[in-house]
Amino acid sequence: MSDNPDTKQIVEKLTDKSKDLSRWYTEVILMAQLADYAPVKGCMVIRPYGYAIWESIKERLDKRLKETGHVNAYFPLLIPESFLSKEAEHVKGFAPEVAWVTQGGNHQLEERLAIRPTSEAIICHMYAKWIRSWRDLPVLINQWANVLRWEMVTRPFLRTTEFLWQEGHTVHATEAEAEEEALKILGLYQDLIQNDLAMPVIIGRKSEKERFAGALRTYTLEALMPDGKALQAGTSHNLGQGFAKAFGISFLDEEGKRRLPWQTSWGVSTRLIGGVILSHGDDAGLIIPPNIAPTQVVIVPIWQSQTYKQVREKVDKIYNSLKSKFRVEADVREGYTPGWKFNEHEMRGVPIRIEIGPKDIEKGQVVLVRRDTREKKAVAEEDLQRAIEKNLTDIQENLFEKAKKFREKNTREVSDFQAFKRLIDKGGFLKAGWCGDEVCEMAVKDQTTATIRAIPFDSKKDNCVHCGKAGKLVYFAKSY
Amino acid sequence: MSDNPDTKQIVEKLTDKSKDLSRWYTEVILMAQLADYAPVKGCMVIRPYGYAIWESIKERLDKRLKETGHVNAYFPLLIPESFLSKEAEHVKGFAPEVAWVTQGGNHQLEERLAIRPTSEAIICHMYAKWIRSWRDLPVLINQWANVLRWEMVTRPFLRTTEFLWQEGHTVHATEAEAEEEALKILGLYQDLIQNDLAMPVIIGRKSEKERFAGALRTYTLEALMPDGKALQAGTSHNLGQGFAKAFGISFLDEEGKRRLPWQTSWGVSTRLIGGVILSHGDDAGLIIPPNIAPTQVVIVPIWQSQTYKQVREKVDKIYNSLKSKFRVEADVREGYTPGWKFNEHEMRGVPIRIEIGPKDIEKGQVVLVRRDTREKKAVAEEDLQRAIEKNLTDIQENLFEKAKKFREKNTREVSDFQAFKRLIDKGGFLKAGWCGDEVCEMAVKDQTTATIRAIPFDSKKDNCVHCGKAGKLVYFAKSY
Repeated sequence: MSDNPDTKQIVEKLTDKSKDLSRWYTEVILMAQLADYAPVKGCMVIRPYGYAIWESIKERLDKRLKETGHVNAYFPLLIPESFLSKEAEHVKGFAPEVAWVTQGGNHQLEERLAIRPTSEAIICHMYAKWIRSWRDLPVLINQWANVLRWEMVTRPFLRTTEFLWQEGHTVHATEAEAEEEALKILGLYQDLIQNDLAMPVIIGRKSEKERFAGALRTYTLEALMPDGKALQAGTSHNLGQGFAKAFGISFLDEEGKRRLPWQTSWGVSTRLIGGVILSHGDDAGLIIPPNIAPTQVVIVPIWQSQTYKQVREKVDKIYNSLKSKFRVEADVREGYTPGWKFNEHEMRGVPIRIEIGPKDIEKGQVVLVRRDTREKKAVAEEDLQRAIEKNLTDIQENLFEKAKKFREKNTREVSDFQAFKRLIDKGGFLKAGWCGDEVCEMAVKDQTTATIRAIPFDSKKDNCVHCGKAGKLVYFAKSY
Repeated sequence: MSDNPDTKQIVEKLTDKSKDLSRWYTEVILMAQLADYAPVKGCMVIRPYGYAIWESIKERLDKRLKETGHVNAYFPLLIPESFLSKEAEHVKGFAPEVAWVTQGGNHQLEERLAIRPTSEAIICHMYAKWIRSWRDLPVLINQWANVLRWEMVTRPFLRTTEFLWQEGHTVHATEAEAEEEALKILGLYQDLIQNDLAMPVIIGRKSEKERFAGALRTYTLEALMPDGKALQAGTSHNLGQGFAKAFGISFLDEEGKRRLPWQTSWGVSTRLIGGVILSHGDDAGLIIPPNIAPTQVVIVPIWQSQTYKQVREKVDKIYNSLKSKFRVEADVREGYTPGWKFNEHEMRGVPIRIEIGPKDIEKGQVVLVRRDTREKKAVAEEDLQRAIEKNLTDIQENLFEKAKKFREKNTREVSDFQAFKRLIDKGGFLKAGWCGDEVCEMAVKDQTTATIRAIPFDSKKDNCVHCGKAGKLVYFAKSY
């Protein structure tokens, strides 16, 4: 059995994560075959392994959304320009990023059509048609779709011209219900991102400057990446009544009075995969949290031609005993050495590797290797299922704890602007006071490139790090 | 408790299916809230109930595809014009239907970008990059995506400018493997469409004229709709080596020789939902086959204010006992009469209705109503689960058998062209001989609007219905 020299070389060439994160990130995506560059600027192809991670995330979020009463629907890709223009702030925010269809078949179109950068405009148009009375509320619709934003600087998963996401669009009778919905979704996202993706996030409100174009309030989840930059992992907006007004959505209340409803919208995207890659990977490749790993356990046989039959039988037996409990794969390919397979599955970030060779069979054991700690231990065959369960849980927790410790180590509180400027270049979150004035926000940004990532809900009072006036503590960071 | 007059009126207004199928079709889609017209010509909004049916179909097909070794991926929406032009026949077939992006952000693009009408061009470009040796084959990739074809005449689900589908794109080392794959998929589609969607289909090959632009051979599944028109429900193509040649896909075989691979592509779309609506519905609305029904069983309480508590308790108890076995819904909304609810769930085509009132509780029974036959029977509470299981199976089979009988009744064999011309206006399939010459195929089409829907695999010899020369039996019909 021979090595595949091409691929082995590739595995060995991966740049150290700590040495050059940006280069490591691009290499690991290509080598683990998560994605590839597409021939259209800023677009990517999501390859089967990357897409399987997206399917895991999608399945786990979709379940949470359905359990809380949300339903899926599908709205058109193309939005007439006049619709996009109805909400003044919205169009101002998105028009510069829109791709326009101007020809259909062989005809020049009378009105340009936008490829949706987000779907508020088309969805609100339909809601105006569908909503009549209080009986029709709340509307709790979500859509899984592709959207397009003509970005200047792109990176696979983190910022691409086209990306996949879900966008929820809800309508409520009262302000309180809309606010409750926006916060409920923030909680679902936090649960998904922390407990499944193992990424600790800071949650809070966005400043006026950073909120979604057309929204009343934007809530955000911010994760810290290993280079000290914040990643906005998801947002949930209380849209207020602005879209309802602009699109003519109204309802008759129980007293027969016509009223304006309140709306929310919220989304997470394939960007989450970028966060997972950056957060957990190491110099050997990806580390995928067990909850979302397409393959949780890979079995690698150690065989020679004279032991092939014996080992193969044992591998099949163990594979069959595990397959209904875990997402397990038996790598019985021939023509690849065990070492080559180890490298490949480490590159792909499979959480647990099981090695089985003739000596293990003699001893009635297998060797279990954790991807995160690379710890290797013999496990008696009869204890295997329990050992896998325990190790998957441990890996999931360890990834989260490690990322959380990193964030804690890299979150600093500062009170004067000189210290702020010095510390911001170390990366990480800076907790500092802010008076609430956009002038100070912009001054900090101009001088440091850092932005306000989140205003925590329980924020304590503190003087503005820039002007010294009364204010409260917020999180600053440089960001993706 | 009061009626909702608006909706009741709507339910009563549904056109008889036999009187005006086309009008019935549009009305039932709007009234059952499967879909709505979008503000862009030819586009539709798939509303939550319609989308839930699509999710059912998707889930059941995706499972079949994964079980046969296929994996999902995602390729970009936008395809550079130069890519589309690489395969000459392909571009000729699709260019007239393409929507073109000419502006991105505020810039005029140097090259127009097509919104994918199908993805062979972009996928083959990537395959040329990914495939190196025989070890990389077969490639068995599928994609769930939206596509766009600038259609002149559109109808919800059956033909829309934008639609949702899956498109499989595979690459094989040999012609035999590609042929096997194309036929295997045809079999999976047939299984899905017949056993889950309850639509009998005729399978076979398309004529040269009707095959997919750029393919070697196209296989098709054709269902017969109640107006006697055929509906192409899905296609599977053996692409031969044309795309590989045009896009430069090659591989080194085990002897190190560079060779051209063979490819397939195949797809089914949201059009299937149109087929389900047309095939099974009746004058009271939709009938959704149990296997794909978002709600298989709806429980409707019959209560007055003095019996509300007692009935509600029983409804909850029964709902809880069924919910892990079936997709069940308890319609405990207040402010709607039982009669109104009956109408609504019949319109939505829920296969089984369970009625529970105080008298039923006294007798330890419920009333079970089948949507397809409207048959009503009392079922002892302890037998309910078994009765539901049996009735769901019966309904699924009955819908298929009914549609099959209809097709058999409307499939006629003819041998002379005068009879052909007379019979084709009755609708249905005409089995007639064809010599294989496009001249005869076109003559039949020009004089009758009927086309060759499928050339069966086991076709027996017969003289051409048009020219009288030797040929074989094929299926003709008018079509959607």
